[in-house]
Amino acid sequence: MCNPNEATPAVAAPPAANDLNPANARDPPLSGEDLHFIPPLNFSMVDSGVFRSGFPEFANFSFLQTLGLRSIICLCPEDYPKETQEFLKSNGIRLYQFGIEGYKEPFANIPEDTIREALMVVIDSRNHPVLIHCKRGKHRTGCLVGCLRKLQRWCLSSVFDEYQRFAAAKARVSDQRFMELFDITSLKNYPLSFPCCKRTLIHHK
Amino acid sequence: MCNPNEATPAVAAPPAANDLNPANARDPPLSGEDLHFIPPLNFSMVDSGVFRSGFPEFANFSFLQTLGLRSIICLCPEDYPKETQEFLKSNGIRLYQFGIEGYKEPFANIPEDTIREALMVVIDSRNHPVLIHCKRGKHRTGCLVGCLRKLQRWCLSSVFDEYQRFAAAKARVSDQRFMELFDITSLKNYPLSFPCCKRTLIHHK
Repeated sequence: MCNPNEATPAVAAPPAANDLNPANARDPPLSGEDLHFIPPLNFSMVDSGVFRSGFPEFANFSFLQTLGLRSIICLCPEDYPKETQEFLKSNGIRLYQFGIEGYKEPFANIPEDTIREALMVVIDSRNHPVLIHCKRGKHRTGCLVGCLRKLQRWCLSSVFDEYQRFAAAKARVSDQRFMELFDITSLKNYPLSFPCCKRTLIHHK
Repeated sequence: MCNPNEATPAVAAPPAANDLNPANARDPPLSGEDLHFIPPLNFSMVDSGVFRSGFPEFANFSFLQTLGLRSIICLCPEDYPKETQEFLKSNGIRLYQFGIEGYKEPFANIPEDTIREALMVVIDSRNHPVLIHCKRGKHRTGCLVGCLRKLQRWCLSSVFDEYQRFAAAKARVSDQRFMELFDITSLKNYPLSFPCCKRTLIHHK
C-alpha cells in the first residue's frame, strides 16, 4: 500500500544565528503587507515534528516550506498534480502514499492494516517533520491521529474530542468505533523515538 | 497585570537513551489498561513549545507532567485551587497570570495591552514549553493564539478558521474583529527566538 518516493530527504541546514536577525539578512525582510502564509485547510500541529491538514494546494506551498518537512503521509489514492510533485522534489520531501478511498457512511472502510502501516511511519522520528493529510483533514487523517493518541495513552473521550474538533458536523460514529477498536498491542514494544512517546515513557517510571 | 510566580523553573533533565527503552526501565512500563492520560479540555499544540487548553484540573495533572512545562499563561482572573498551586510548585512551573474577565457579547472587552503583554511571554522561548489557557480554551486563549498567528504572518482567514475550530458554536465576531485590528507593528523587531518565527524569517530571505 505504501509508495515511498525515493527522493533523498533534504533537511534545510539550520541557519547561523546571524541569519535569524533581520538586520543581517541580505535582503530586507518583507513587511506584513507583503507576505501572508496560507496554511492548508484544517492545518494543525499534532505533536513535535508531526502536523496534520487537508489536501495541500499551490497556495499553501510558501507556508509548507516554513515547516521544513522531511516527509508527507498522503492518505488519498489520487496522484498529486504535477506542481505538487515538483514542490516535493525541489524541497527534498519524501512521499509516503497510503491510498485509502474516501467513503460515505454507512459504507465504512478504514483499512486497519493500512492505518497501522502509516502509524509506523508517523512514529519513526527519521521521517520528521512529517505532514499527515487526506482530502479535508477530517476522517482518514482524524483516524490516523486518533490511533496515534491511543498509542500515547490518551483516554478515548479526549481522542474523540480531538477527532470531532476537526470533523465538526461531519463527524462519523464509524470512525470513532474504528479508533476505539484499533489494537495498539503490537506497537507497544516498537522502539519509541517519537518525542511524545518518550514523554509518555518518562512518566511511566 | 502580570503576576509571575517566582518559583525557579525546573526543567526535567533529559533521560539517558537507555531510559527510553522499556526493557531498561527499573519498573516495567504500565500497560494501556493501567494508565490513561486526560488532556485538559480543548487541549492542542500551537507550535513547538507552545500548547493551549481550557482550565487545567486535577484529572489532567498526569498528562500535563508529560509536557515538561516550564510555564503557564493563565488568562483568568481567578486564583488557582490549592491543589493546582501545589502542582505548579512541585513541578517548578512558573505562572504568568493575566486576569481577563470572561464576558458575553455584545459587551466585548478583550484588553489589547494585556494580550500584547501575554504575547511577549509566549514568544520568549525561555518560557517554553508554555501552556496558554483560560476557562474553556475558546475566546481569551483563541484571541491570544490568533495574535500569535498574525505575528507568524498567517492570513486572516486561516487565523479565523483556527479560532472557530476551538470556539465552535460559541465563536464571536467581536473576538475576530479584535484579532483583525490587533497591531503587530511594535512586535516585528522583537528578538525572535521562537521556533515558528525563526522559520518565518528563514523563509523571508
